[in-house]
Amino acid sequence: MDQKEGHLQLTETASRAAGETAPTAFERRMLAGLLEACGHPPLAIVLWNGEQFLGEGRQAPVARIVIRDRGALLRMVVNPELYTGDDYSHGRVEIEGDFVACLEQIFRGLDTLPEKSVKARFLRWMNRPRANSLTGSRENIHHHYDLGNDFYRLWLDREAMQYTCAYYPRPDLTIEQSQRAKLDHVARKLQLKPGDVVYEAGCGWGGLARHFVRHYGVAKVRAFNISEEQVRFAREEARRQGLDGRVEYVLDDYRNMSGQCDVFVSIGMLEHVGVDNYPTLGDVIHRVLSPHGRGLIHSIGRNRAAPMNAWIEKRIFPGAYPATLAEMMRIFEDNNFSVLDVENIRLHYAQTLQHWFDRFEENADEIRRMYDERFVRMWRLYLAGSKASFLVGALQLFQIVFARGHDNTVPMSREHLYRS
Amino acid sequence: MDQKEGHLQLTETASRAAGETAPTAFERRMLAGLLEACGHPPLAIVLWNGEQFLGEGRQAPVARIVIRDRGALLRMVVNPELYTGDDYSHGRVEIEGDFVACLEQIFRGLDTLPEKSVKARFLRWMNRPRANSLTGSRENIHHHYDLGNDFYRLWLDREAMQYTCAYYPRPDLTIEQSQRAKLDHVARKLQLKPGDVVYEAGCGWGGLARHFVRHYGVAKVRAFNISEEQVRFAREEARRQGLDGRVEYVLDDYRNMSGQCDVFVSIGMLEHVGVDNYPTLGDVIHRVLSPHGRGLIHSIGRNRAAPMNAWIEKRIFPGAYPATLAEMMRIFEDNNFSVLDVENIRLHYAQTLQHWFDRFEENADEIRRMYDERFVRMWRLYLAGSKASFLVGALQLFQIVFARGHDNTVPMSREHLYRS
Repeated sequence: MDQKEGHLQLTETASRAAGETAPTAFERRMLAGLLEACGHPPLAIVLWNGEQFLGEGRQAPVARIVIRDRGALLRMVVNPELYTGDDYSHGRVEIEGDFVACLEQIFRGLDTLPEKSVKARFLRWMNRPRANSLTGSRENIHHHYDLGNDFYRLWLDREAMQYTCAYYPRPDLTIEQSQRAKLDHVARKLQLKPGDVVYEAGCGWGGLARHFVRHYGVAKVRAFNISEEQVRFAREEARRQGLDGRVEYVLDDYRNMSGQCDVFVSIGMLEHVGVDNYPTLGDVIHRVLSPHGRGLIHSIGRNRAAPMNAWIEKRIFPGAYPATLAEMMRIFEDNNFSVLDVENIRLHYAQTLQHWFDRFEENADEIRRMYDERFVRMWRLYLAGSKASFLVGALQLFQIVFARGHDNTVPMSREHLYRS
Repeated sequence: MDQKEGHLQLTETASRAAGETAPTAFERRMLAGLLEACGHPPLAIVLWNGEQFLGEGRQAPVARIVIRDRGALLRMVVNPELYTGDDYSHGRVEIEGDFVACLEQIFRGLDTLPEKSVKARFLRWMNRPRANSLTGSRENIHHHYDLGNDFYRLWLDREAMQYTCAYYPRPDLTIEQSQRAKLDHVARKLQLKPGDVVYEAGCGWGGLARHFVRHYGVAKVRAFNISEEQVRFAREEARRQGLDGRVEYVLDDYRNMSGQCDVFVSIGMLEHVGVDNYPTLGDVIHRVLSPHGRGLIHSIGRNRAAPMNAWIEKRIFPGAYPATLAEMMRIFEDNNFSVLDVENIRLHYAQTLQHWFDRFEENADEIRRMYDERFVRMWRLYLAGSKASFLVGALQLFQIVFARGHDNTVPMSREHLYRS
């Protein structure tokens, strides 16, 4: 994610503001405290009057952060995670240079904040998830979920519009190839066989269902999703490809699944389920999975429990929560499912996000025309910030394969995943 | 684990007792209740007077259980898990036919006992682990831990005496080949490189250390163990093989590890650590592992939390506890370790136990001469019961690979594990 023309332009704007009053001694102290709290990252900070501060570290700065007014500095001190995102979106904060590297530095720094420090406690309190994350966030939800297929089509892969982590058996794959490789990796983990009945919880634009039917000869995929727009797209696409007899897109909550399946799969839905509902998810799987059925859950996760990044939770994905593996086990324990295989492909998500980001930037003008500058900046920050989160290890991507506890037909080895 | 001569002999004894008084109506009811609680397993029960009861299921009996006196029946009803083990050891209960299949049926049956039933609660209370499992079990500990190398040599693999789950990339491997394959599987998971310094917690007879030095060119393995007899054996073996400059067997608790390593490995020690000590184990690993170090923990586990089988906990392994994956995560969470890979190789342990059992039976006469008949029966039950536990899914075997949360040098794929 290289320096973009838009950023260079804003540097100039920052310079033009050089006539403004110099920071007060108190503001300088706040800034020093901020750099201290972030572990002296190799960043340059430029204030509204053009004055530049360098981190104390020996490394050359990887990026410059321009704080364009004193309010933005104050807000940054109060709640860097939340307000800096907002201020970047509104252009009150600017990032010049390597966008992702800059966020990486900040995330690594905040990560070193002692858990029990007053600041850390304060931030946890400020950024605690709301019981009903929807309240007061209507505009943002609307912004995210009703953005429509035309927006996502501009930067997701063109084959199946998969809005989840891709898989790179080789680093040079395109996003289309890597998303296909992800589906094949998942299919192998699930040991798909011709004739299988597959249930999918949370199917996005339905690409997995069509891929499984087309390439693995499964008898049927019933794919559940509560987004009308996505289901409409998925159904049209299946009809267009002549697969509509074997894929069924169900506009319903996964909790209403009935009947029986050989395979249960869920890619990128768990983030929105909520830990308290994990046992219910397990009950649903228990109800529908055949005695020798196989299951896979693919989800963003964490090494240790922590709330979602406050800005993303509030502005991008209300209610989202990346769980730890220990928390995810609540899906399996009550119904005696046996976890067979867990793979962490965090770095694949960083690569996926790079592809999305590049395509997003290529289409930034069109997106700006569809929405506005603030929207473009918000999404740029979200994509770059997500990549940085996976790079610093603040987020993980777990694929969990499971079967029933008594099932002795499970494979002895995972070697079949890697046979060419 | 086929019918053995010893069992046939005992059948005759059972028949000879046929003159004893017939079971009372109450005893018949107890027996019926027992079969009911076990889900009507396909087993035949022969009582002390020669009378035979068949389960109500349609399947032909896979084995006969001979209850040789009324006390044994009563004890079986009160606490089947604990007392039946003891009574088998003492010859008051006999198993004829397929030993493992018989235990499988019983374990499956007990597993279906509703969690909240009075019987299940009672058994949990009876079989709760003691705060200090050593108290009152001194004789048994003595029996298990001071058995000496000569005993284990009779039935473990002859190369490295590995008393942990082997790995079968092909089903026809000998126990020597499969134990070697396990070490190679672990070495690949750890991406061993020439020059690596490896720390091992709980090294048994030291086979891993010698294998890693000999075949992977690691600079040094420091292997910790608190068993004097094992350490003495391991040191002699290293000297004999000319490896004593590069393997160091440390007669000390893993908690006293110091210095720094590239690789941390622990095979089959976690079962004896105790969940409350998992964070401490994590702290030890955090202290010694280099920034780009790799770690692997191999341990028996569970799909859901439950105490160890009461008989095994009391008679064979005091203090042992197979944890769930969720519980094991307590090792990693506090120190921001990232779980990269979890593999469940439960069925490999069933196969390993079959190999041990066969070799044990081949040497039963010698073992009887070294100890006594009760000892042979106790160990036969333990080995067969363990195999049955892995077969019914009451026990799992997890290999967990981890690294530091910030480490971006971790492999993108696990394909290297399966390259020939």
